Amino acid sequence: MDQPAAASDKTPRTSRGRRTLRKLLDAAAVEFGEKGFHEASISSITGRANVALGTFYTYFDSKDALFRALVADMSEAVKASAREAIHEGMGALEVERAALADFLKFAREHREIYRIIDEAEFVDPASYRRHYETIADRFVERLKGGGNSGELRGGLGEVHAWALMGMNVFVGLRYAVWGEGREDLDRIAEEVNLLIARGIEATEG
Amino acid sequence: MDQPAAASDKTPRTSRGRRTLRKLLDAAAVEFGEKGFHEASISSITGRANVALGTFYTYFDSKDALFRALVADMSEAVKASAREAIHEGMGALEVERAALADFLKFAREHREIYRIIDEAEFVDPASYRRHYETIADRFVERLKGGGNSGELRGGLGEVHAWALMGMNVFVGLRYAVWGEGREDLDRIAEEVNLLIARGIEATEG
Repeated sequence: MDQPAAASDKTPRTSRGRRTLRKLLDAAAVEFGEKGFHEASISSITGRANVALGTFYTYFDSKDALFRALVADMSEAVKASAREAIHEGMGALEVERAALADFLKFAREHREIYRIIDEAEFVDPASYRRHYETIADRFVERLKGGGNSGELRGGLGEVHAWALMGMNVFVGLRYAVWGEGREDLDRIAEEVNLLIARGIEATEG
Repeated sequence: MDQPAAASDKTPRTSRGRRTLRKLLDAAAVEFGEKGFHEASISSITGRANVALGTFYTYFDSKDALFRALVADMSEAVKASAREAIHEGMGALEVERAALADFLKFAREHREIYRIIDEAEFVDPASYRRHYETIADRFVERLKGGGNSGELRGGLGEVHAWALMGMNVFVGLRYAVWGEGREDLDRIAEEVNLLIARGIEATEG
């Protein structure tokens, strides 16, 4: 999360500025996650971040602008986390397994992410839709790549991308966000991976 | 939607009462769907339903109570619609295909259902969780039934249930709610069905 997103004309140019922006975004994640958008307040966020109230406006025009930046920042954080979990040389199915296992662990550590992304549907519908469309685009790329390499069957595309994304989101909701913290997330990612690899139909013989 | 849910002590006993309750729930679906919970008002809902404001309190104690009843009513409506799409003698995979096709058509006709269920996460978290847990339980039953009949492989359970439910929810979001209304929902349900039947791995030979 080294390069947090902010309103473009307010992007900080110094490392100190970037640190302050990071503190504001981290405080906002806690505040919005605990209280929701409507109850959250700028003064409480600056208090949590240990930043002067006036400083807030150096970075954001409003609570809405901060919320939008937070959604973009969280999308980026999920993506960055997944990138670290995936290595050159992994096959297409192995990539999906590793990305899901990583996402489940990320969501367990950042349970507030669900509440914040979900609230974007109401606070900032465009961010909400962009969040999922962007992720779906990456699924499509990976599925087509797997088809080209011959590991996956041909003809995979957008429908399959949304299906796989939905699986991951709901498995994360159940086991990472609503879980008790003891579930074996690697094993769960493996079960989902077997489901997407071979389906649920009984094999003959 | 013949037997709408309401606060138990306020359940209407006459057919006229049930019709009024139905009108209030239908008006609430439009109002909450358009404005969201916080902006919605009881007076606007009774206006839409063409019911006197005072009559509202014969049926519900508050806007919160109406919202909870609406979430339960929508869960029931989805379930009832799926029941009609499924017939005796269908195989386990055929049931999943028919249920998804039906759900996609239902969601296209009732796009407000996503916004209302999703807003329950914030307005009434217990209803939100119960909604999905109830659906997941039905998936588990069907998957185990399919395993017992030999059509599906053994060992299917809760993880697969949440995965399949998530697929359906997200495919519905993309093609029924955010769709242009021209997508071939039957074809989409078939593609998802092939995905869950046999997966995405290339078959050898």
